[in-house]
Amino acid sequence: MDIGIVGLGLIGGSLALDLRTMGHQIWGVSRQERTCQLALEGGVVDYASIDLKLLAKVDLVFICTPIAAIAPVVQQLIPHLSPETILTDVGSVKQAVVEQVAPLWSNFVGGHPMSGTADSGIEAAQSNLFAGNPYVLTPVETTPATAVKIVEEIVRSLTNKVYLCCPQEHDQAVAWISHLPVMVSANLIDACMGETDPGVLKLAQLLSSSGFRDTSRVGGGNPELGVMMARYNQEALLRSLTSYRHNLDQLIELLKHQDWQTLDAKLQQTQSQRPEFLC
Amino acid sequence: MDIGIVGLGLIGGSLALDLRTMGHQIWGVSRQERTCQLALEGGVVDYASIDLKLLAKVDLVFICTPIAAIAPVVQQLIPHLSPETILTDVGSVKQAVVEQVAPLWSNFVGGHPMSGTADSGIEAAQSNLFAGNPYVLTPVETTPATAVKIVEEIVRSLTNKVYLCCPQEHDQAVAWISHLPVMVSANLIDACMGETDPGVLKLAQLLSSSGFRDTSRVGGGNPELGVMMARYNQEALLRSLTSYRHNLDQLIELLKHQDWQTLDAKLQQTQSQRPEFLC
Repeated sequence: MDIGIVGLGLIGGSLALDLRTMGHQIWGVSRQERTCQLALEGGVVDYASIDLKLLAKVDLVFICTPIAAIAPVVQQLIPHLSPETILTDVGSVKQAVVEQVAPLWSNFVGGHPMSGTADSGIEAAQSNLFAGNPYVLTPVETTPATAVKIVEEIVRSLTNKVYLCCPQEHDQAVAWISHLPVMVSANLIDACMGETDPGVLKLAQLLSSSGFRDTSRVGGGNPELGVMMARYNQEALLRSLTSYRHNLDQLIELLKHQDWQTLDAKLQQTQSQRPEFLC
Repeated sequence: MDIGIVGLGLIGGSLALDLRTMGHQIWGVSRQERTCQLALEGGVVDYASIDLKLLAKVDLVFICTPIAAIAPVVQQLIPHLSPETILTDVGSVKQAVVEQVAPLWSNFVGGHPMSGTADSGIEAAQSNLFAGNPYVLTPVETTPATAVKIVEEIVRSLTNKVYLCCPQEHDQAVAWISHLPVMVSANLIDACMGETDPGVLKLAQLLSSSGFRDTSRVGGGNPELGVMMARYNQEALLRSLTSYRHNLDQLIELLKHQDWQTLDAKLQQTQSQRPEFLC
């Protein structure tokens, strides 16, 4: 198959590497000439250009740009495409993307490969980045079944964990397990730093160890990513945050009323529930 | 020096191992005959008994029981001690312990070795458990300087990170970096499980990965420990939780008002502040 990839960063480059290894012809587009050169020299793609025209004859295009650029790129791409071309994206939120792109191009299937590393850019691209990790596709009622079938088949060649759901379900699920943890974790750092006694704050910093390190990790991560989650998944994240605050209020009441029995029951429950998220 | 250890579990056993290696005579007391035997056979202690009378002639006693047992053990121990004997404990909260024990025995120095493993019991005892980890001592105004000096010297032979502060400062610092993370993390699991759409909950469980795993780790831990923290450090933990909720309210407002600039500034701040807790 002839496959186009727009955006040759960590995700786009890694998709290219795997798909090329499987025998597909890979046509890569990057805004930067240097990235095109690196992709060609590294054998990441068969062809590369800074011009979207390169993708005139491909069967399938992965849009691997930042979320804000997905719809604009599709608009620029449309004049060059034949109507059969299928588009998919790799954005980490889906409702906002699908709402913008589906009306522009009916052969569009939203996608979200849940793989990543701390690094970014074409230099960080690696083989088998997706293997064993979830890859979600979010077709809607208007998405042609053939388009879904073709994207699903390609994606199943990358990982055995492919899930199909509607964009809203995807966004609420990732709000719970990815975006809410970032906010909860960032707020932990923020709250600690609000300690007004400088001696206690210093002592807290000296005494902190693995418990604090793990709980604060995602809250000390890339601010741009955090803002992107909040911005493009505002509704689902607010729903999760509001629910989180409601439960926090209950927890605070348990402590105030010294209701150790109920607290014990709650902590026993969270202990037994956590493994269900770690399969 | 002749050193007594009451409670031959992970902490008591590990203290015994290190101190015996340094040439001290170790007198161990456990409630269980079997533990005494194991401690003797394993070379953890020089002498062992289920009777506190064994400690009649030691210079220093480490009380390594669960928090609730510390004051009762001291009361049972007092009739057997000479007035010069110094007592210290290893409880993870200090104000409640010091308030109970200091009036019973003036030669008492509260202590908290911040070391641990997932395992417990004499079988889990290991050499060098304390090396490189914080060990906090919490003398109060009435604590004799000689007692502090002797305990500090012994503790410095176990680790180079020895900190002295008042019990309240200790409790507030560990509320921030140890007890608050447990509650924040448990509440994350609890909130997620409150998702009312079973399809979304299932999807969330399928999609969760390292971000959720790390943020939920301490909240999925030992419920007894969590209740103990809340019970014995109620005041400081409530202060931290109330402050956390206040900041959470502010965060929710930022999202509601789509104030991405302030959110970005906040996340940049937490990113730059986190390393100060990881020295």
